[in-house]
Amino acid sequence: MPTTEVRACIDACHACATVCLSDAIQHCLAMGGKHTEPAHFKLMLDCVDICRTAASFMARGSDHHAHICRECAEICRACAESCEALGDMRECVDACRKCADSCDRMAG
Amino acid sequence: MPTTEVRACIDACHACATVCLSDAIQHCLAMGGKHTEPAHFKLMLDCVDICRTAASFMARGSDHHAHICRECAEICRACAESCEALGDMRECVDACRKCADSCDRMAG
Amino acid sequence: MPTTEVRACIDACHACATVCLSDAIQHCLAMGGKHTEPAHFKLMLDCVDICRTAASFMARGSDHHAHICRECAEICRACAESCEALGDMRECVDACRKCADSCDRMAG
Amino acid sequence: MPTTEVRACIDACHACATVCLSDAIQHCLAMGGKHTEPAHFKLMLDCVDICRTAASFMARGSDHHAHICRECAEICRACAESCEALGDMRECVDACRKCADSCDRMAG
Repeated sequence: MPTTEVRACIDACHACATVCLSDAIQHCLAMGGKHTEPAHFKLMLDCVDICRTAASFMARGSDHHAHICRECAEICRACAESCEALGDMRECVDACRKCADSCDRMAG
Repeated sequence: MPTTEVRACIDACHACATVCLSDAIQHCLAMGGKHTEPAHFKLMLDCVDICRTAASFMARGSDHHAHICRECAEICRACAESCEALGDMRECVDACRKCADSCDRMAG
Repeated sequence: MPTTEVRACIDACHACATVCLSDAIQHCLAMGGKHTEPAHFKLMLDCVDICRTAASFMARGSDHHAHICRECAEICRACAESCEALGDMRECVDACRKCADSCDRMAG
Repeated sequence: MPTTEVRACIDACHACATVCLSDAIQHCLAMGGKHTEPAHFKLMLDCVDICRTAASFMARGSDHHAHICRECAEICRACAESCEALGDMRECVDACRKCADSCDRMAG
């Protein structure tokens, strides 16, 4: 089974994927304007995908998890910045940053 | 944003997906024998997939989430039974049952 | 290995997922208006998710593939109708209908 | 819409994911022995996950697709080697190599 630290990172990835997906669809889409500009919106869905992929690699105990976690941290950080610039997405910013920090530790 | 009840179900789906995937790869594969019989092993990965799909439908607030949650509950229950028959997969049995019960409530 | 018919359905699912995802992001988001109304946009992403899930169940030769394919056919058909009503999404309509028909056959 | 070259890479990713998943479950699991050794089996499922993730990033036209495609090429190549060493997985070796080459071009 995954260690406590790995499990915490898997949980952070899932939490981030959930907030990014629900905010993209249930907040950004309703707001329109800057919230649906392609660069921002794509980043939200990129973040969902890479967080889930990282969670899978960690759950399997895959040898390749470090590279995936490094990529995940990078995308989460970019998504946090993009959300922060919009000013009304605090929960998403926090989930992305927490996930990025956790993935950084996994990436070694 | 998802309600507290929806969020609890999303969390149960993610927890179930994590345990099923890590146990399939890090426990069943190491044990071999009945643990890697195709019917059991496929069910473990079916469970991972449908749990994530259900989590996505709920995060989006999709109109189709009820059907997906019903299917998720069914597969989780089958996976719980298959794991219970093996006798050494208590955590997986519990995660599958908890997810099935939560998805049942979402399916209405 | 999957039979020729199963493989054709897996391919139809992947083709549908690709068109729905690329059109949602690269066409609907740019158009705005009715193209980003939540009911339509969520359906596009629902379709991406269920098509991939159906493809996975078929690739594994899972016993549960019939239920998943039935659900996939239903969502693809709803997505085709939603896209057809917008008038400028012919490729997506066709991919959804082709996938729905193929999944119907798998659902038995 | 994706260019012809991007679409060819998405197709190669989907084809690779399908062969790896069906072979892992319907061939490796039945064979046992070296075919279910964790290092090999995990790599097969890693390959399925990263191929789908790369396909999603390309379908969205994401700015981050190049990094993901580079990682995908690396994992596909490792999977091809692992399958080649087993001696009876020609289709999987070919699908992984074709996908790796296509992803290399996308990674620039």
